[in-house]
Amino acid sequence: MSFHSLEGNAAFWPRFQGIRRQTEQLCAPLTAEDSVMQPMVDVSPPKWHLGHTTWFFETFLLLPHLPGYEPFHPQYAFLFNSYYNTMGSRVARSDRGTLSRPPLEDIYAYRRHVDQAMEKLLAPALLQTLPELPALVELGLQHEQQHQELLVTDIKYILSCNPLLPAYSEKKATVSSPVSEKQGQNEWCTVPAGLYSIGYTGNGFSFDNEHQAHQVYLQEFQARRTLVTNAEYLTFMKAGGYSDFKYWLDEGWQLAQQEQWQAPLYWLQQDGDWWHYTLHGLEKVEEQAPVTHISFYEALAYANWSGNRLLTEFEWEALSQLHANPVGEGNFLESGLLHPVASALPDHPSHVAQLLGNTWEWTYSAYFPYPGFVTAPGALGEYNGKFMINQMVLRGGSCATPQSHIRPTYRNFFHPEKRWQFTGIRLAKS
Amino acid sequence: MSFHSLEGNAAFWPRFQGIRRQTEQLCAPLTAEDSVMQPMVDVSPPKWHLGHTTWFFETFLLLPHLPGYEPFHPQYAFLFNSYYNTMGSRVARSDRGTLSRPPLEDIYAYRRHVDQAMEKLLAPALLQTLPELPALVELGLQHEQQHQELLVTDIKYILSCNPLLPAYSEKKATVSSPVSEKQGQNEWCTVPAGLYSIGYTGNGFSFDNEHQAHQVYLQEFQARRTLVTNAEYLTFMKAGGYSDFKYWLDEGWQLAQQEQWQAPLYWLQQDGDWWHYTLHGLEKVEEQAPVTHISFYEALAYANWSGNRLLTEFEWEALSQLHANPVGEGNFLESGLLHPVASALPDHPSHVAQLLGNTWEWTYSAYFPYPGFVTAPGALGEYNGKFMINQMVLRGGSCATPQSHIRPTYRNFFHPEKRWQFTGIRLAKS
Amino acid sequence: MSFHSLEGNAAFWPRFQGIRRQTEQLCAPLTAEDSVMQPMVDVSPPKWHLGHTTWFFETFLLLPHLPGYEPFHPQYAFLFNSYYNTMGSRVARSDRGTLSRPPLEDIYAYRRHVDQAMEKLLAPALLQTLPELPALVELGLQHEQQHQELLVTDIKYILSCNPLLPAYSEKKATVSSPVSEKQGQNEWCTVPAGLYSIGYTGNGFSFDNEHQAHQVYLQEFQARRTLVTNAEYLTFMKAGGYSDFKYWLDEGWQLAQQEQWQAPLYWLQQDGDWWHYTLHGLEKVEEQAPVTHISFYEALAYANWSGNRLLTEFEWEALSQLHANPVGEGNFLESGLLHPVASALPDHPSHVAQLLGNTWEWTYSAYFPYPGFVTAPGALGEYNGKFMINQMVLRGGSCATPQSHIRPTYRNFFHPEKRWQFTGIRLAKS
Amino acid sequence: MSFHSLEGNAAFWPRFQGIRRQTEQLCAPLTAEDSVMQPMVDVSPPKWHLGHTTWFFETFLLLPHLPGYEPFHPQYAFLFNSYYNTMGSRVARSDRGTLSRPPLEDIYAYRRHVDQAMEKLLAPALLQTLPELPALVELGLQHEQQHQELLVTDIKYILSCNPLLPAYSEKKATVSSPVSEKQGQNEWCTVPAGLYSIGYTGNGFSFDNEHQAHQVYLQEFQARRTLVTNAEYLTFMKAGGYSDFKYWLDEGWQLAQQEQWQAPLYWLQQDGDWWHYTLHGLEKVEEQAPVTHISFYEALAYANWSGNRLLTEFEWEALSQLHANPVGEGNFLESGLLHPVASALPDHPSHVAQLLGNTWEWTYSAYFPYPGFVTAPGALGEYNGKFMINQMVLRGGSCATPQSHIRPTYRNFFHPEKRWQFTGIRLAKS
Repeated sequence: MSFHSLEGNAAFWPRFQGIRRQTEQLCAPLTAEDSVMQPMVDVSPPKWHLGHTTWFFETFLLLPHLPGYEPFHPQYAFLFNSYYNTMGSRVARSDRGTLSRPPLEDIYAYRRHVDQAMEKLLAPALLQTLPELPALVELGLQHEQQHQELLVTDIKYILSCNPLLPAYSEKKATVSSPVSEKQGQNEWCTVPAGLYSIGYTGNGFSFDNEHQAHQVYLQEFQARRTLVTNAEYLTFMKAGGYSDFKYWLDEGWQLAQQEQWQAPLYWLQQDGDWWHYTLHGLEKVEEQAPVTHISFYEALAYANWSGNRLLTEFEWEALSQLHANPVGEGNFLESGLLHPVASALPDHPSHVAQLLGNTWEWTYSAYFPYPGFVTAPGALGEYNGKFMINQMVLRGGSCATPQSHIRPTYRNFFHPEKRWQFTGIRLAKS
Repeated sequence: MSFHSLEGNAAFWPRFQGIRRQTEQLCAPLTAEDSVMQPMVDVSPPKWHLGHTTWFFETFLLLPHLPGYEPFHPQYAFLFNSYYNTMGSRVARSDRGTLSRPPLEDIYAYRRHVDQAMEKLLAPALLQTLPELPALVELGLQHEQQHQELLVTDIKYILSCNPLLPAYSEKKATVSSPVSEKQGQNEWCTVPAGLYSIGYTGNGFSFDNEHQAHQVYLQEFQARRTLVTNAEYLTFMKAGGYSDFKYWLDEGWQLAQQEQWQAPLYWLQQDGDWWHYTLHGLEKVEEQAPVTHISFYEALAYANWSGNRLLTEFEWEALSQLHANPVGEGNFLESGLLHPVASALPDHPSHVAQLLGNTWEWTYSAYFPYPGFVTAPGALGEYNGKFMINQMVLRGGSCATPQSHIRPTYRNFFHPEKRWQFTGIRLAKS
Repeated sequence: MSFHSLEGNAAFWPRFQGIRRQTEQLCAPLTAEDSVMQPMVDVSPPKWHLGHTTWFFETFLLLPHLPGYEPFHPQYAFLFNSYYNTMGSRVARSDRGTLSRPPLEDIYAYRRHVDQAMEKLLAPALLQTLPELPALVELGLQHEQQHQELLVTDIKYILSCNPLLPAYSEKKATVSSPVSEKQGQNEWCTVPAGLYSIGYTGNGFSFDNEHQAHQVYLQEFQARRTLVTNAEYLTFMKAGGYSDFKYWLDEGWQLAQQEQWQAPLYWLQQDGDWWHYTLHGLEKVEEQAPVTHISFYEALAYANWSGNRLLTEFEWEALSQLHANPVGEGNFLESGLLHPVASALPDHPSHVAQLLGNTWEWTYSAYFPYPGFVTAPGALGEYNGKFMINQMVLRGGSCATPQSHIRPTYRNFFHPEKRWQFTGIRLAKS
Repeated sequence: MSFHSLEGNAAFWPRFQGIRRQTEQLCAPLTAEDSVMQPMVDVSPPKWHLGHTTWFFETFLLLPHLPGYEPFHPQYAFLFNSYYNTMGSRVARSDRGTLSRPPLEDIYAYRRHVDQAMEKLLAPALLQTLPELPALVELGLQHEQQHQELLVTDIKYILSCNPLLPAYSEKKATVSSPVSEKQGQNEWCTVPAGLYSIGYTGNGFSFDNEHQAHQVYLQEFQARRTLVTNAEYLTFMKAGGYSDFKYWLDEGWQLAQQEQWQAPLYWLQQDGDWWHYTLHGLEKVEEQAPVTHISFYEALAYANWSGNRLLTEFEWEALSQLHANPVGEGNFLESGLLHPVASALPDHPSHVAQLLGNTWEWTYSAYFPYPGFVTAPGALGEYNGKFMINQMVLRGGSCATPQSHIRPTYRNFFHPEKRWQFTGIRLAKS
């Protein structure tokens, strides 16, 4: 995790407060019972997210750096450690759903306790004496933002398992510009062959996995200017995409057969129409919105069927360097829409839409270390590096990603079969 | 379920109220989060018990018999049907833990709604016109009492899975008579050979599986006058009972090896002493109390090791006919102790102790139909008969059984590997 | 295993030779590759049966009793011990199919080696000095006969898994008496209420589980004089027997759904007709032959559907005492038919057909110890007793049982879901 | 599969004969029973390899191209199709071990039948009229060579599962040059930064996955001139490498814990010494030989522990372009050693040893398509492309690889947890 120049320590406390409050606002619509659900092992109970993000500050900031800090409860370290072997034993990931106690109000008290101590730690006078602290605080905040996204997707999965299909929130009215049929306009843009610099080189925050920046040689390719829409995906479905092995990777095909996949996650057919569960309840699938909740296997099968392919993560980053739309139109967590939305082609013929926000874009790149990658010493070295196998890189953030958390060099990663994140498809061709 | 003469319909409503209130009192110490836990498939969430017992009255009493009754919610029948195929599809047993919604307060509102309607149905004037009703109401109440016992054992299991090992309630002070060492007193009593009548023949309520009463020929045998104590079981453990296959049934031995059983469920060793989780938190194992939370396999291994055997259910019933202690000293749900307690040998040398209450006693009898057994028509025919395979009969009730629910002919049944009920051991020899 | 008076020791060697040869003749049609197959965990490879029965004589007869006997190979004890913990570690049951070595010819050499030593041991002069020997030899022969039946059923299962569906042997022409429609003849016979003596009381060989003989009181019942036929079972199938839960035990219903059972094992439908795999290859299902290869669950579902029930093992034994057909017409292993065949009602109106041979008859009795049952000391105590849980008793032997091996008190036992034995249905009613 | 210029069609038949004979020679030491073993799902029975390679010629060569060809048996296509969905249904991979029939001699007859027909097809006169044929024949031969390697590794696994630990063949005396301690000699060589051409560009045979050749930019790195030895790996083991999570990827660590890995596959400790099962039976681990039978997880853990890393597949290919030892010293299938052997550092300080042969070298590269990769039309398009997920690239061939089958651009691929191939470790550093 690198972290060169920060905007001034005085700004820390308000930013800390804002991000911590945002987490709690995300949980506000939940019942206490919702907060302990773990309907599949990938999902963590919201109560656990609330505790774990707090444990992170207590463990890595307060205990080592705030003189006289008293931990809130002697067993919380056991309850809320996620995967840091360095930090000792912990509740097994699959058992997080057994944590009916501590009750939800205790977790909020835990948050208050830690936030008050953090306010002391972030006092400019103290901060000045601890030069290593700003980077750690920043990491804690970025970490909490990552869990905000997971909270949204985990809550969606939790509520979707309930036979009552409850809505998490009311749908916001969107004033989306109509997607005009711009006849003749090119849907593809071109990235020329050459050496591109990949990885983070700025002065802000970045994760260790975005380093070291290095040169990658790319051949010329073309990328679609918009994400694949539900209408396009429905065409694939109707054409038998889910029942013809030839578009699929073998492991994906076997899984799709076994799980009887016929559509993206959360979709169901009623009286001939396709509906899907959203955070606003069951809704009709909107044709112009980007398709989402598909696995890498489905993304690639779609690409193969359409005669195209997916981008690599290096191509994606080069695309963003050359063709990003300078007019910020991203649909992030802050929009409150909590679902990808349709967008028109940008006016400028070389700009691509929906690059940041809306849906994460599956790339055909494995989540592996960049040349010269080194992990941090100690527990924080377990943050990213130990997961660099069997996972695919996703780029660009989604409608559940906080806007200040994402950047073009950001590397997200999931196993190719996962579908509960807001994942989508951008096509490429050579 | 037979039900010949009842104590007068006027008594129904207070009894109904009392039993319904008892269920809610059992859940009072729980948090909302506790109420949705399902840490293993055998356990149902307390919220589900609260809803399911209510669904039973709504489905079998109110909908068919109370004119104008409106169901509380159209989907509750799907949520709270347990296993009645006749009544349609339902939430899979293993998915009961996903029911964060409806929230707990809605379930209590559901109970109010149904109780108010039941008060109307139980008005003597209406009741007189519906001769089939008393038997159904009685079944609903007996059914709710069965779930009271399951609530206690499920809550114990739920809380025991929590790393904080919270107590459900304060321990009550017991004024147990000291267990004197009555030297020379015979610990065994004899049941002579002969034909015994087995099964229910009285005029009160009984389940279908207690019928038909029939003659069984027994050879002479002897039964222990008290349950096996923790001290005795510890001797078995120290003698290597868990590591010598020759005392065990083969399937039990394989399971014990695989699950690494070394002691009853809930036991753990600290600094050389044995402790166990109780509903009052972690406590030292009390030597004179009956051992509990053991599987049939462990019960039989203990019996084999001690050179004795278990009773059959027929022997147990004959024992209760000849040797029951007329001085009621049972430790039932109403005692609030929620754990088996020590008892002295009865003064009368032919009386046995702890026959009803304290712990269910594993018998070496399969849960199979009595001669002439017939199931009721319709959904209630699924109550008992379809479970008559692979399960062992237990007799006598436990410290979690309501006193008015148990009788000597009562047949409880569990798979031989189950340990989360209050199960214990009574020895026999020929 | 009791064994009171034997026919004279001189007869031992020819009988030994005959039974040993019979085992090898059963394996003669197999390829070497067939001899190592274990397509499911219940099935043992034929090579293993050949070795294990030999190991039994080596271990329990030769090593302890023949001076100077040298074991054939130091590791065979590890390879061919089945389940005797007393005799040390062994190849896991599920790994028997990994034994490509020793090659088949070595196993036959092992058999020669042991048989030659046994000839010495069975010399009358030696035998006279070892009074405990005859019972052990007899047990070894009975044990080998048990494995002959398993060989037949395991071979059938093995070959049935092969896509080529090879025949094991040519079908023998049967001169079965035509099953005449004896109009008006009673298909049921009656057993009156009373005390019956159950268990073995003769002077020949019997297993420990047939002891102690004891009194059982039975109520009056009626039993069908013939086994349920394929034609009758097809009526059940056509009436939707496999798709209506109400005939089924709950565990059976869940299993049948999960495994998609629609017919007995080995049955398949082609162009509207039902065929089944037999040891003579694929054949059309013969309507008048007894149905076979059904689980206890299917047997009971059929009985429930037909408005009848199954017998208990005690009822079956009483039936055989009162109504056995003195005209031996059993279809045993020696017939070489290797499949159950049709039979007519016996001429005498109180005689029942097909009681011994043809198919084992599922009873609604658990395989539990008789009163006073004791296991033998040492390894042979593991022969039967440790399996007395979760299994159902079957009575009467089958077309794969050697005739000299079966008797009316014989208790066979399998888990209720097993279908690869020649199992069938006899109905009862009260 | 590209295939530009071949050495002349006349040479086809002798080469075909030689490769086919080689396959059969590999199976010669096996018993018929060995030939049907499938002790884990990754392993195919040798009989199946013999049939499947033959099916390949029958299906893709003879049926479409030899007029009047009659298939050997109508069901063999079902039995011996491996994974070509295009070619219809087939025996499930996990059920290949059920194929006791057809007997082994039938498979050899099948091979004769197909070989005779192939001789006709490969007659120069016919060959001239079928320009697409040479490439297909070549593919069939390369395919058979791939199965030769799998035969060796599968046979090793099969025999290792047998408690008798039989040897496959006698150990050949090796006249390995002593590994002299060349003090001061550099064990590393350097590859400078720059653009490298990756992928096959020659005129011989190559697989589709080696195309298209393309430019890759590499940063400067250093590679070890020899493979990691058993002595080095033992140091890692003794230093606690298997019990310290910090060297491991998380999924590898969890697997290693679960499977209780303490050493490479086939290793066992006796009296303080390490032995391993080889194709010549149990042998003491030789310190100077390359370590083998390790997973990617172990390879990476070793690299991390040693302070180095693994190469990417692109680095490996660049290394081979710059530093291959022109003196062929590879230990391939043809050596008959069937195990990796020690080698000295090459005399020339810039040459690396053991690049081809001995062990496959795990790279930290995912098995993904090269830019512009396209699959062949029809069934052969399933050859490689559909496996491009979740697998790691290995380079260089092993002691079980035919020498004429391997080349520096060859991409082998296995899941990171696999250990039954001859896999090894070459280190890199930046």
